[in-house]
Amino acid sequence: MKKECKSLSLPLSLGFIGGSTKSAVGYTHFVASQMDNSWKLAAGCFSHNFRDNQETANVYGVPPERVYESWKEMLDTEQGKLDAVAILTPTPMHFELVKACLERGYAVICEKALAMSSDEIKQIIDLRDKMNGFIAVNYNYSGYPMVRELRSIIKSGQLGQILHFQAEMPQEGFIRVDTGGNKPTPQAWRLLDGQIPTIYLDLAVHLHQLIDYLIQQKPLAVVATQDSFGWFPEIVDNVSSLCRYTEGIQGQFWFSKSALGHRNGLKLRIYGSHASAEWYQANPEELILAYADGRREILDRAARTEIAKDLRYNRFKSGHPAGFIEAFANLYVDIANALIEYNSSGSYHSSEVFGADLALEGLQMLEAMVLSGSKGWTKTPPQH
Amino acid sequence: MKKECKSLSLPLSLGFIGGSTKSAVGYTHFVASQMDNSWKLAAGCFSHNFRDNQETANVYGVPPERVYESWKEMLDTEQGKLDAVAILTPTPMHFELVKACLERGYAVICEKALAMSSDEIKQIIDLRDKMNGFIAVNYNYSGYPMVRELRSIIKSGQLGQILHFQAEMPQEGFIRVDTGGNKPTPQAWRLLDGQIPTIYLDLAVHLHQLIDYLIQQKPLAVVATQDSFGWFPEIVDNVSSLCRYTEGIQGQFWFSKSALGHRNGLKLRIYGSHASAEWYQANPEELILAYADGRREILDRAARTEIAKDLRYNRFKSGHPAGFIEAFANLYVDIANALIEYNSSGSYHSSEVFGADLALEGLQMLEAMVLSGSKGWTKTPPQH
Amino acid sequence: MKKECKSLSLPLSLGFIGGSTKSAVGYTHFVASQMDNSWKLAAGCFSHNFRDNQETANVYGVPPERVYESWKEMLDTEQGKLDAVAILTPTPMHFELVKACLERGYAVICEKALAMSSDEIKQIIDLRDKMNGFIAVNYNYSGYPMVRELRSIIKSGQLGQILHFQAEMPQEGFIRVDTGGNKPTPQAWRLLDGQIPTIYLDLAVHLHQLIDYLIQQKPLAVVATQDSFGWFPEIVDNVSSLCRYTEGIQGQFWFSKSALGHRNGLKLRIYGSHASAEWYQANPEELILAYADGRREILDRAARTEIAKDLRYNRFKSGHPAGFIEAFANLYVDIANALIEYNSSGSYHSSEVFGADLALEGLQMLEAMVLSGSKGWTKTPPQH
Amino acid sequence: MKKECKSLSLPLSLGFIGGSTKSAVGYTHFVASQMDNSWKLAAGCFSHNFRDNQETANVYGVPPERVYESWKEMLDTEQGKLDAVAILTPTPMHFELVKACLERGYAVICEKALAMSSDEIKQIIDLRDKMNGFIAVNYNYSGYPMVRELRSIIKSGQLGQILHFQAEMPQEGFIRVDTGGNKPTPQAWRLLDGQIPTIYLDLAVHLHQLIDYLIQQKPLAVVATQDSFGWFPEIVDNVSSLCRYTEGIQGQFWFSKSALGHRNGLKLRIYGSHASAEWYQANPEELILAYADGRREILDRAARTEIAKDLRYNRFKSGHPAGFIEAFANLYVDIANALIEYNSSGSYHSSEVFGADLALEGLQMLEAMVLSGSKGWTKTPPQH
Repeated sequence: MKKECKSLSLPLSLGFIGGSTKSAVGYTHFVASQMDNSWKLAAGCFSHNFRDNQETANVYGVPPERVYESWKEMLDTEQGKLDAVAILTPTPMHFELVKACLERGYAVICEKALAMSSDEIKQIIDLRDKMNGFIAVNYNYSGYPMVRELRSIIKSGQLGQILHFQAEMPQEGFIRVDTGGNKPTPQAWRLLDGQIPTIYLDLAVHLHQLIDYLIQQKPLAVVATQDSFGWFPEIVDNVSSLCRYTEGIQGQFWFSKSALGHRNGLKLRIYGSHASAEWYQANPEELILAYADGRREILDRAARTEIAKDLRYNRFKSGHPAGFIEAFANLYVDIANALIEYNSSGSYHSSEVFGADLALEGLQMLEAMVLSGSKGWTKTPPQH
Repeated sequence: MKKECKSLSLPLSLGFIGGSTKSAVGYTHFVASQMDNSWKLAAGCFSHNFRDNQETANVYGVPPERVYESWKEMLDTEQGKLDAVAILTPTPMHFELVKACLERGYAVICEKALAMSSDEIKQIIDLRDKMNGFIAVNYNYSGYPMVRELRSIIKSGQLGQILHFQAEMPQEGFIRVDTGGNKPTPQAWRLLDGQIPTIYLDLAVHLHQLIDYLIQQKPLAVVATQDSFGWFPEIVDNVSSLCRYTEGIQGQFWFSKSALGHRNGLKLRIYGSHASAEWYQANPEELILAYADGRREILDRAARTEIAKDLRYNRFKSGHPAGFIEAFANLYVDIANALIEYNSSGSYHSSEVFGADLALEGLQMLEAMVLSGSKGWTKTPPQH
Repeated sequence: MKKECKSLSLPLSLGFIGGSTKSAVGYTHFVASQMDNSWKLAAGCFSHNFRDNQETANVYGVPPERVYESWKEMLDTEQGKLDAVAILTPTPMHFELVKACLERGYAVICEKALAMSSDEIKQIIDLRDKMNGFIAVNYNYSGYPMVRELRSIIKSGQLGQILHFQAEMPQEGFIRVDTGGNKPTPQAWRLLDGQIPTIYLDLAVHLHQLIDYLIQQKPLAVVATQDSFGWFPEIVDNVSSLCRYTEGIQGQFWFSKSALGHRNGLKLRIYGSHASAEWYQANPEELILAYADGRREILDRAARTEIAKDLRYNRFKSGHPAGFIEAFANLYVDIANALIEYNSSGSYHSSEVFGADLALEGLQMLEAMVLSGSKGWTKTPPQH
Repeated sequence: MKKECKSLSLPLSLGFIGGSTKSAVGYTHFVASQMDNSWKLAAGCFSHNFRDNQETANVYGVPPERVYESWKEMLDTEQGKLDAVAILTPTPMHFELVKACLERGYAVICEKALAMSSDEIKQIIDLRDKMNGFIAVNYNYSGYPMVRELRSIIKSGQLGQILHFQAEMPQEGFIRVDTGGNKPTPQAWRLLDGQIPTIYLDLAVHLHQLIDYLIQQKPLAVVATQDSFGWFPEIVDNVSSLCRYTEGIQGQFWFSKSALGHRNGLKLRIYGSHASAEWYQANPEELILAYADGRREILDRAARTEIAKDLRYNRFKSGHPAGFIEAFANLYVDIANALIEYNSSGSYHSSEVFGADLALEGLQMLEAMVLSGSKGWTKTPPQH
């Protein structure tokens, strides 16, 4: 039964499912959501481990009476009291949780990937439409100010026509040893590849979203090759792909968990007819622009910018490096604002908040990549 | 009349004097102090501007009844209710405010520089000792994990004997134009140089503290030269200095607000007999080490570290860049822990929290620099 | 009629066909071949333009009596007087010239690509075998000391098993404007794509050779996509490719003349099971190594090296940057030494000098890439 | 007795005194002088070691009849046959050799430092004037195209008024160990400091010349501090200095042989009222410019340049890194052209060739630095 809490002013109240201090992303969601006082973490079922759940509540400052041992209990008890629920569990649980939230009238903020397959997302979309629900997916990398600046630059035509791009996200987690020489111990669910191997859901969804965000074109066809090179022989940990987008754009994707040296080597290079741009997540405050006449520029918040100059991106002035958590926080503010608009009008218009529709396009593209391993070039969405 | 609030568990309650959203540092203190839930901002007199004060309280989520129009009223009203007061006003007000807090029994967290002269600090120390007060100064740059790692490396002897160093903090604020070609408009108090010109109090105190922090040696003598190169002809904006430390260490300081291209170019280079280290604040997650046999290493949180590996410095794992605000937050956590120890035992032992004694040494060194302009090499503390 | 000059000591005498001061590569070949006094440029037919030919001879210090207006005349007149002929003409002329040299008994040094197709190379190989000829192709990039060091590191097993690689060579020549806003004017022959478009012959042959050089594995299959994005609509200027090598190695190639910002962005990244390596031609003196335990190293000539420490690679000691011309010169010395061994024994063994056999493998791979545009994944050598 | 060879066309004939293949600089002078065919190395007395002398002659291709066991014999025998003599011996021998050359009418090319003291240089200048002699000193770093470009940029006013600078040249040679853990073995003469310690003559003369070259202002006063930190306790290996130039310019110099990690860390940073520039010798092809409005640019040969675009600086086009030897060669060409002008007219005008007058100013400044160790701020030239 749907029952909503439709606050119209900040801070909004938030509940977590998952996201304990022991999870990979919990603490980041906590800090990012609280940073700008646009959300107040008010309730949670942070872990099925009793002790972790309690300790997390303590660290996050959530009062005991709103800490739950089961998410069902939480969703039932908190109905009408939370503006949104953030789903921070392992990806395989998203589908069930998103549906449970939507059915009860909760606005949903879901860690990517929204679900495990395009079929699951289609069902989520159906339910969302039926319930007139709200879903925001945490595509956090487009929260970086210089990524937003780059989109603005591209929109303005400064790069000319977009021609080709290189998008890569190499990591090393599945081939590292720790300083004692021991192999890594990923969460269990990451060691079971489904129809779409986990690496696609962990990494490639970001690349898909970022390219969409920046160039606002659609993928048409892909060819990919996938391997398992690291410690876990059944688990895909390296994927290379060529792709074709609308307007004749050609792209190359690479994502990996078996590329030593890359803690998280997310890099985007966009080539246009008048200029190119390069952004590297490890140095997120700078954007490198290169023009057809040979000029090369390093752009940052202290230079002439359209977006990055905004006060909200300058919690401290340029020269005092901002990073991952601030980018994440930027998105949480955007989601809060979108949700207030939605609460007041029943819909929202945001250029920063992305939901199930983009997630569907993304998973269809990833499914095409997987398919292409046996088929060669494959259209996306895959044709049936 | 002294009246204390001696909490023994986190979060501690905090009041701000100064630190509105319109100030340079207010928002950073707000976010940093709240980030890890070790402090709860509970009261404030954020600005003498009524509207800024109210708006800030709203952004920071401070309830109206604990927002004050005068700091005196706040200090009088909140006695016994706040674990500490953070003094975030312009530097010239610090002296009076620190004293007012100490007299009323408030623990003090003071934005650097603690005061305008070594004489003021001596008076503060006297009062602190009389009241058995608590003072922590926001030397925030030593909150960076890789700076802390470097200290640990130096302590372990990995660099051998420290021989010489280069410490620089060039900025450009007083010689920039904005994108419309207009000259900058610093706060009025920054355009009036006292006995120690403001640039020393703004920048050089950081360099002094960082060198102390890393090599744990004392300055003996300095020679400096100061200039005004930027838009404000009466205001010193560039200082170069040679210095001599204990153990025969030779150092070079440079700090500037008229060095175009440097948003905040804080860089430390420490040269030892076995190895050297370089840390650049704009790329704070990496430390470059170079050894006597020619090896060069890039150290980050994902490599073998002693300090930076701690969970507290890994809100998100390496590869997801952390920056200025996290460094600031690290210090706020340390101050909270030191204060709890102080509350329970009457004293504290922290290798991360620095107070009036180091501030005194620093201002004496800066006074020696200023003096040296006419005298040449000058001992520190200046001999009378 | 074959007639040979079989010198057994340095310097060897050299003739140029092509390579005027107005050509792209002539001056480099001149300087590189003369640098270490292993070759003496003694004769030439530098240009079919009379004046360029004369002026070049003057700049290069070649006596007028050994400057020729036609290469035929040169080859006929100089028989028995030159240890080798360097063929520096546009690629389409290589086939005829290489054959003419071999037939007359000249040792051949040929600028890459050796020929326009694998068929041409097969004919060259037949002739070389019949004449027991000598052919060295100018794969100059493996002349860089740190590339050679990297091969040694890989051979030693320091990277473990090679798993995957990224090889890219983006350039911008076909999409730039000059500072006056005018489009570029490449040589006419570069504006006519043959069976294998010129970009493959200009750039991809280097990538093929460098990967062969470093990992010593063979390409098995490729899939590529090619585009024309720049000023010349008929001319391919951007190619992306996935490939599969022996031992299960997966690779990605990208080469472009329409990637703004890249003067010549040759970069090689090799990922192994124990470590990875990155080498970037614009910073050729350094090699970045990253190990499974998180260590990252910057290796240069001044560190512990096996190859780069050799005197020959230290014309001036580390810290005094060596570049493209020295790398080229290194190869010319190697060719001289290989030729002397060949002159004395009829064969040579060099790990640094590559000839028609590797060139054949390379062009077969490129032909497979071209074919794959319509066929998808394509085996190499293409099956008939 | 003076007897001259006054060639008026390239290549000019050159003799070496010193510069064997075993010396630090010999090979570089050989390659650089021959690179562009402006000089022909025709005679030499390369080493007092017979075998090294012979072997060097062989490597350099100098015919046996023009190889000499004593420099006196060479100077006597070659009179009238060499356009210039390059003096490449240890610095302490320069004074005697320069005089011997001038007396016999040889044009002199002398490795820096020209002599050991300003007194020696004054005597050289007297003799030069008496003989109307030609002296060029190898200030090779201003041969880098981007250094020349930077001078042009400064001259054009693009940086505005020059305000302050940082000039540093840290090296590590006196504190390194080799890969076997052994301490270095510098040439014996480098282990005996004269009135001006050798490190000043080796490194600081470059910094003095480069600042002169770029900003074309004169040093007025200095204060320095010097130490011996490395393996050789009597030998100065680290010097830091503040200085004051004409037009109120403030500068900082640092040069070292005990700074681990710096193979040769020559870096120049020039700050003006409109823009700043940074050039780092380890990355010599790029210049970083930062403007008052926040723009930052990376300038290289492929961008809009005034100087670096010249054909002579583009032996191969941008993207194919040129380095130290090409910079050196650029200077050799300039010297050749200046000498031809001098040969034809009795004088020359070159903005690139520097001789005894600049060397005098430099050594006077270095003497002031040495003096300042005991005196504090010291005027230059030192007042008597």
